[in-house]
Amino acid sequence: MHKAFDQATAILAGDALLTIAFDAMSRAEVHPDPAVRIALVSELARAAGLGGMAGGQMIDLAAEGRFEDKRALPESEIAILQAMKTGALIRFACRAGAILGQADADARVGIERYGAAIGQAFQIADDLLDVEGDTATIGKTAGKDAAAGKATLVAALGPTGARAHLDALVAEADAALAPFAAKADTLRATARFIAER
Amino acid sequence: MHKAFDQATAILAGDALLTIAFDAMSRAEVHPDPAVRIALVSELARAAGLGGMAGGQMIDLAAEGRFEDKRALPESEIAILQAMKTGALIRFACRAGAILGQADADARVGIERYGAAIGQAFQIADDLLDVEGDTATIGKTAGKDAAAGKATLVAALGPTGARAHLDALVAEADAALAPFAAKADTLRATARFIAER
Repeated sequence: MHKAFDQATAILAGDALLTIAFDAMSRAEVHPDPAVRIALVSELARAAGLGGMAGGQMIDLAAEGRFEDKRALPESEIAILQAMKTGALIRFACRAGAILGQADADARVGIERYGAAIGQAFQIADDLLDVEGDTATIGKTAGKDAAAGKATLVAALGPTGARAHLDALVAEADAALAPFAAKADTLRATARFIAER
Repeated sequence: MHKAFDQATAILAGDALLTIAFDAMSRAEVHPDPAVRIALVSELARAAGLGGMAGGQMIDLAAEGRFEDKRALPESEIAILQAMKTGALIRFACRAGAILGQADADARVGIERYGAAIGQAFQIADDLLDVEGDTATIGKTAGKDAAAGKATLVAALGPTGARAHLDALVAEADAALAPFAAKADTLRATARFIAER
C-alpha cells in the first residue's frame, strides 16, 4: 500500500481493516448469543493490541535499536516476540472456533495447544522461506530478513536446526488434535500446509 | 509521536490505542449485559472505521489531490467529511451513554441530535481557533490549516459566518436536551465549553 499509494493511505487502510474486524465480530450472524460475540471481541482485542500483534511489532522495532546485530537477541526473547507479533492472532483464530462452538474445557486446551504450535511453525516456515525460497515464490524479496539482521530462530538455530524444530511443532500440533479424531483432519492438513508451503 | 520517536512507533501506538478501545468496551465492568457491550463495540467500530473516522480522513486526503485549492470543496462535502472524520466519534460518545443507560427511543433521538450538533460545533471551533488563536494556546501551529489549503467551513463561510453557525449549533444542542431538564446540565456546559474554549 505505501508503495502503490502513500504512507497515509497505508496507515488509514490498516486502521480501517483493524476496525472492520471488530465490526464483523459484533454482528448477530456471527453467533446469536451476544456473550459469545463479546468473548470474541475481547480475545481479538488482546491478540491484536499491546499484548499481541502491535506490542510484538514494537518490541521487534525496539530490538533493532538495542543491538547492532539483531541476531544477538536471545532465543527466548525471539520466541516471546514472535508469540506476540504473529502467534497471538493465529492462536486467536483457533480459539475463536472453540468459542463459537462453545467447546468444553478439554477441547479448548487441545485447540489452544494446536494454535500455539502452528503459530510458531508459521513463523519458522516463513523465516526458512526467506532463507531458502526465491523472490517470485514468496512474494517478497528473499534474503531480506538476513540483510536487515532480523532476529529469527532460523538465524539462531541454523536452517537444519530450524527445520527439525518445525517438524517437532507439526508433530505437537498433531498430538494436540488427537482427541478430535477425524473431525480435525482439516486442521491437520493446515498444520502440514504451513510447514511445507 | 512521529516527531518525538518515529513514524513506525506512531503507527503502532495508533493501532494499539484503537484496539484498547475495543478491549475496554468488552469488559464486564462496563455493563453486566453482554448485549449492551456488543452494541457499544458495533457502534464504535462503525464510528471509527470506513464509514467514520478512517473513511473521513481518507476523503480528506483524497480531496487534497483533487483540488488545487481545497477550499474549493463544496460546503456540503466539507460537512460530510467532517461528520465522518471527527463527528462520528463524538456522536458515538454521546450515543454510548444512551446505550449504557438503556434510554428509551425518545431520549436516544435527543442525545443523537445533541451529539450531531456538538460534533459540528467542535470542528468549527477548532477551525476558528486555527484562524484566530495563537500557537501556544491551541497546542499546534496557528494558521496551519489555511496554509495547507485545508477545506474548512471557516474558509467557506468566513470567521463571522462560522461564528454565527457555531452559536446556532450550541442553541440546537440546548434544544435537543430540553426534555432532560436539569439532568442534562453537564451536557449543556460541555456544548458551551466546546464553543468557547
